[in-house]
Amino acid sequence: MSYLERLRELGYTLEPVELDAGKIMLGVRSGNLIFTSGQVSRLGDLEIKGQLGADLSVEEGYKAAQLSTVGCLNVVQTLAGGIDKVVRVVKVLGMVNVAPGFSNTPAVIHGCSDMLLHVFGESGRHARSAVGMTLPLNYAVEIEMIVEVF
Amino acid sequence: MSYLERLRELGYTLEPVELDAGKIMLGVRSGNLIFTSGQVSRLGDLEIKGQLGADLSVEEGYKAAQLSTVGCLNVVQTLAGGIDKVVRVVKVLGMVNVAPGFSNTPAVIHGCSDMLLHVFGESGRHARSAVGMTLPLNYAVEIEMIVEVF
Amino acid sequence: MSYLERLRELGYTLEPVELDAGKIMLGVRSGNLIFTSGQVSRLGDLEIKGQLGADLSVEEGYKAAQLSTVGCLNVVQTLAGGIDKVVRVVKVLGMVNVAPGFSNTPAVIHGCSDMLLHVFGESGRHARSAVGMTLPLNYAVEIEMIVEVF
Repeated sequence: MSYLERLRELGYTLEPVELDAGKIMLGVRSGNLIFTSGQVSRLGDLEIKGQLGADLSVEEGYKAAQLSTVGCLNVVQTLAGGIDKVVRVVKVLGMVNVAPGFSNTPAVIHGCSDMLLHVFGESGRHARSAVGMTLPLNYAVEIEMIVEVF
Repeated sequence: MSYLERLRELGYTLEPVELDAGKIMLGVRSGNLIFTSGQVSRLGDLEIKGQLGADLSVEEGYKAAQLSTVGCLNVVQTLAGGIDKVVRVVKVLGMVNVAPGFSNTPAVIHGCSDMLLHVFGESGRHARSAVGMTLPLNYAVEIEMIVEVF
Repeated sequence: MSYLERLRELGYTLEPVELDAGKIMLGVRSGNLIFTSGQVSRLGDLEIKGQLGADLSVEEGYKAAQLSTVGCLNVVQTLAGGIDKVVRVVKVLGMVNVAPGFSNTPAVIHGCSDMLLHVFGESGRHARSAVGMTLPLNYAVEIEMIVEVF
């Protein structure tokens, strides 16, 4: 099965994106590495906002991490000329919008890691930090990635 | 116009800096990439401290992001042997000192992105995350960059 | 003296680690760069949890940063085939678990920087950000590194 087919098994598809987001790019390639911008938990008409530990359950946070991950993969696909160009997901910074006292941030970012493993297999197993902070416009999750491509 | 002239249009100049800051370096080059240390919102005698959403307006935060950006460019200039050696600003991590409830962090870090676009044109359009956290010694903004150079 | 001997002077040794941590890797190599996962302040049977500014002193945070650093070096040693393969510690992101009002995050992450300088000498002098946020499972410190190796 191709990476795209495996992603479809999880209920998601990729879309071409306009990389130029005005003041910033959604991602930049330097050599064989793609650095994505932080992608918030928004995909098409769906967005997940709120703080873990106050407004959202871990399950909702997990879903939010999936949306951010698909956002990153859209960027990688567009920059690399296809998701099949991925050699390795190198590094994930998973940022969770947290209320005071919520520190189960890894369980939220597992929504990203599980997806990357399902789609890319061993090539998707990445280094990661999963931490809590304050996110733009109260989005639940924001994820940035470094991905090695052909 | 040169990059330096474009920066001057915004009212800023670059200065050589001592890269060795004791326990750390202000930036390190590896291959064609420069990784800067996080540069706080301090430039010469001017410093901007305080939390967005409590002590500072978005406009003051925007100015703080400019100071951090010039700090990064000073480092890049010194490490690369001139700001004209910049091939591409690859990635910006914009960190904003926030009070609870303030999540308009992108508007603050636009102070960085607008400056990079003005100075470098398309070569300055970068991948970015702009998030809220707690910063050293209560500085308003801290920015770190990855920059590709010749 | 070798790097390992210098580390032993500080009372620490390195251990081989299983890089595959299930959903993630403890570190990934891409070209000559190693990207570690964020390593929390836990080493063997010892762990340091709590917030700076509420539960822990700066001295305890400094010690926590040492534990995280040894965790990173375990990963680098295993991935590179020996700590003597380190060319340069490029970048450290030091994350401190902070209570509201605590902003002396650099003094905590000095526990990392001092160790890297002691062990690697000039090759250990790195670019760094040292900031406050919310960490997984209430660990006091989490550190991720980018290290250039042969």
